[in-house]
Amino acid sequence: MVGRYRDAVKTKFSTLAMRRRFWESILQGPVADHVLAGRDDLDEQTLQAAIEQNDPEALTSGEVYLVGAGPGDPELLTFKALRLMQRADIVFYDRLVSKEVLDLVRREADMVYVGKQRAWHAVRQDEINQLLLKEAKQGKRVLRLKGGDPFIFGRGGEEIATLAAEQIPFQVVPGVTAASGCARYAGIPLTHRDHSQSCQFVTGQLKDGELHLNWSSLVQTRQTVVVYMGLAGLPVLSQQLQAHGMAADMPAALVQQGTTERQKVWVSTIAELPALAEKEQPIAPTLVIIGDVVKLHDSLAWFHPDSSH
Amino acid sequence: MVGRYRDAVKTKFSTLAMRRRFWESILQGPVADHVLAGRDDLDEQTLQAAIEQNDPEALTSGEVYLVGAGPGDPELLTFKALRLMQRADIVFYDRLVSKEVLDLVRREADMVYVGKQRAWHAVRQDEINQLLLKEAKQGKRVLRLKGGDPFIFGRGGEEIATLAAEQIPFQVVPGVTAASGCARYAGIPLTHRDHSQSCQFVTGQLKDGELHLNWSSLVQTRQTVVVYMGLAGLPVLSQQLQAHGMAADMPAALVQQGTTERQKVWVSTIAELPALAEKEQPIAPTLVIIGDVVKLHDSLAWFHPDSSH
Repeated sequence: MVGRYRDAVKTKFSTLAMRRRFWESILQGPVADHVLAGRDDLDEQTLQAAIEQNDPEALTSGEVYLVGAGPGDPELLTFKALRLMQRADIVFYDRLVSKEVLDLVRREADMVYVGKQRAWHAVRQDEINQLLLKEAKQGKRVLRLKGGDPFIFGRGGEEIATLAAEQIPFQVVPGVTAASGCARYAGIPLTHRDHSQSCQFVTGQLKDGELHLNWSSLVQTRQTVVVYMGLAGLPVLSQQLQAHGMAADMPAALVQQGTTERQKVWVSTIAELPALAEKEQPIAPTLVIIGDVVKLHDSLAWFHPDSSH
Repeated sequence: MVGRYRDAVKTKFSTLAMRRRFWESILQGPVADHVLAGRDDLDEQTLQAAIEQNDPEALTSGEVYLVGAGPGDPELLTFKALRLMQRADIVFYDRLVSKEVLDLVRREADMVYVGKQRAWHAVRQDEINQLLLKEAKQGKRVLRLKGGDPFIFGRGGEEIATLAAEQIPFQVVPGVTAASGCARYAGIPLTHRDHSQSCQFVTGQLKDGELHLNWSSLVQTRQTVVVYMGLAGLPVLSQQLQAHGMAADMPAALVQQGTTERQKVWVSTIAELPALAEKEQPIAPTLVIIGDVVKLHDSLAWFHPDSSH
């Protein structure tokens, strides 16, 4: 049936890029549903209508997908994330996206590493914003793939603000955030009736060797604190929390590359954590979880990547 | 090929339930991968080995899957969530799971509604814990399907603690939490370099007409506060936040049934929010988002379920 319509499509859509987009839209839309349901008659009508209705220009306008890749395990990708990963012409990814997830991107897509190291710079972020814009303006489907969740310390807001200002169409796909995924695979609930009624996510990135956090808010009881990117600042974090009244023996955990086969969990206390990290040298991304819920790790742990489980 | 092995399987696995589980495990494992890759030879070896290695008893032992159904949009389900939804014998779900998601559960599964209304009771939660335990002990694959994320105010910790104590195997699958999904589909980033460096998730459920929250921590600047289940307590929330120093014109939003076709977003201020809710009568689940990031709603909104977008 596709064969019979090939010429009509060629006449309407003059470039190869347009035709590819047209057929892709057909394969993902109602025509495919009709074919699968054995309704060939309905199908031809829909296809004919699609050829007439589709605007050749609109088919080649670029767009940007800002997609959360989740904490690492490819099974924690959402359906929406994978669907857009399979449509991309070009992909900008950083070092927090796991190898297993990258393997699922459409093979024909150009892969561009914009991985930031620990200290990220405003200029660098601005460059990424401009890259997304430039590629979308050339008519490409641009995938910005971010570890975890694009909006929780992922600076997704800034990236789409640039796009919105230039009226580039975009979609944002939330992911399972690292705090959520890693805590779970480590058997640590973030909230728990007996131990924690609130959880707070903060970024532990150092600025000029210091952490600018609201310390008194972090030391309140019955809450869980999750620190993103907190490895380099761990000594400062530990010292400041105790200086502001947190008990030295407050349970704290490090979760290295959570949810992946490389996951490692170390359980300690806020006072002992820097020495532990110094000794074990965890690899980024590593999340710090602080609070009484960490005590539940032993009884609730169920994911053991090292064992046969 | 399956036909040739039918008798061997029948001899080894005496009950229908065992045989069903055995074939399911084969269809989801390496044998299926080999068949799809055209490696029939490798395939027979693997199948033969599987018959020899599988323990008939283990195949019929029950297990529990505690799965986060995400905020509503079925495309925000993770692959792992859907895979376990397709294996369940019995499903316990509550009212926060969207209809679209429930439609994707295995058709043969028994569906049990354990939906809690606004005020949930300790007894009721305990009953759910016991139900999961009872069904798993009967050898069933039990799916506990929860809206959003099972560990963020989902009391997942309590449910699996019961299972762990009784040595019932369980798996926990994180979901996209409501805060994450709803904020995103409403075009509100939870953290943003210029507006917010921290985000705090709290539960807004009333206890004896009051909210037991750490108010001074909630009114700090440059953070976003997301309140789960905060609809009934909205007047108390608004009044207390202002009493503890939050500016009356602090931006605040209500997101009703976020990420679904029924999503509605209202943007206002913390002072005006109760009157707005009184007038508009949003339907649960509705999330409250408070902070300067709410101001970004206008420029970043991209999901318009009412329009053709």
